Amino acid sequence: MTDEMNSDQQPEGLDAATHTPELDRIAELEAQLDEARNQALRAAAEMQNVRRRAEQDVEKAHKFALERFAGDLLPVLDSLERGIELSNPNDPALRSMHEGMELTLKMFLDTLSRFSVAEVSPHGEPFNPELHQAMAMEENPACEPNTVLKVFQKGYTLSGRLLRPAMVVVSKAPSAPAPHIDEQA
Amino acid sequence: MTDEMNSDQQPEGLDAATHTPELDRIAELEAQLDEARNQALRAAAEMQNVRRRAEQDVEKAHKFALERFAGDLLPVLDSLERGIELSNPNDPALRSMHEGMELTLKMFLDTLSRFSVAEVSPHGEPFNPELHQAMAMEENPACEPNTVLKVFQKGYTLSGRLLRPAMVVVSKAPSAPAPHIDEQA
Repeated sequence: MTDEMNSDQQPEGLDAATHTPELDRIAELEAQLDEARNQALRAAAEMQNVRRRAEQDVEKAHKFALERFAGDLLPVLDSLERGIELSNPNDPALRSMHEGMELTLKMFLDTLSRFSVAEVSPHGEPFNPELHQAMAMEENPACEPNTVLKVFQKGYTLSGRLLRPAMVVVSKAPSAPAPHIDEQA
Repeated sequence: MTDEMNSDQQPEGLDAATHTPELDRIAELEAQLDEARNQALRAAAEMQNVRRRAEQDVEKAHKFALERFAGDLLPVLDSLERGIELSNPNDPALRSMHEGMELTLKMFLDTLSRFSVAEVSPHGEPFNPELHQAMAMEENPACEPNTVLKVFQKGYTLSGRLLRPAMVVVSKAPSAPAPHIDEQA
């Protein structure tokens, strides 16, 4: 590895007493050694970075896989809930099916919650634009402005990150005295 | 970096004409340079390995996350299917619920299949111990031995790997002439 370097040497120093080919060679080798050692250190540091990034990538891959899968399952969950809502639990003909579907839904929600999927069902809570999407505003003197009056469709988070916002109706402050008060007067 | 090395030098050669402190130093530096360069090469090769392993880990993390999640969802799917099986589609009172549950099940299966989850429902197929688990054996002269006569519970694969075996009843060859033939003779 070092043989071709030897043939390259050119004496060019001014001080002939100390400037020998051997000293030139020593200086050259020292410089090369420095460079090679720095290279090894940089490679070791870079390897640390690669390892750390790899760990983060693994975590991200894990999260991302669950995020897509869980997100795609939400319409299935919606459909099951809608079926339960539409069936009358007091109808004796439907009771056992209704109970069966409720059991299935409970299993579904329990499984999702084991994978850190949580419902966003903010009825009566203050509107939070990070978790809720307003479909409509309604005046409602019985509520504080910006209260969720109705949840059209539940939202969901995964490990605290939003999978889907809750679709909601939000109260607003009356902009003016309501016209029907005038009519009654 | 190299100063302490200089003070360590001990002239110990036998050939005084060619064995100078400078030549010792050159030999030492060349050896160190070789070592440092090898170290840098090894680090670079190791980094390639770390990168490759990291890619595999990401793929595995992705698969593993889906595998656990999909596996845990199977009882939900079973429960939904059982509910549909137990409800009579010809009962007018149940028809709309039955249809709704079938729609929900279809959405569920479609979503699972988008994530490479596939049913193992081997009714009438040859028994395959890699995908099926035999719950019972039954003599059945109408079938080849080792045929799946009944699927108790469907199995599922994820990207071709088994998530859960199908629970099945398998036909076996009649071990002896059936006794009731003797009774009839």
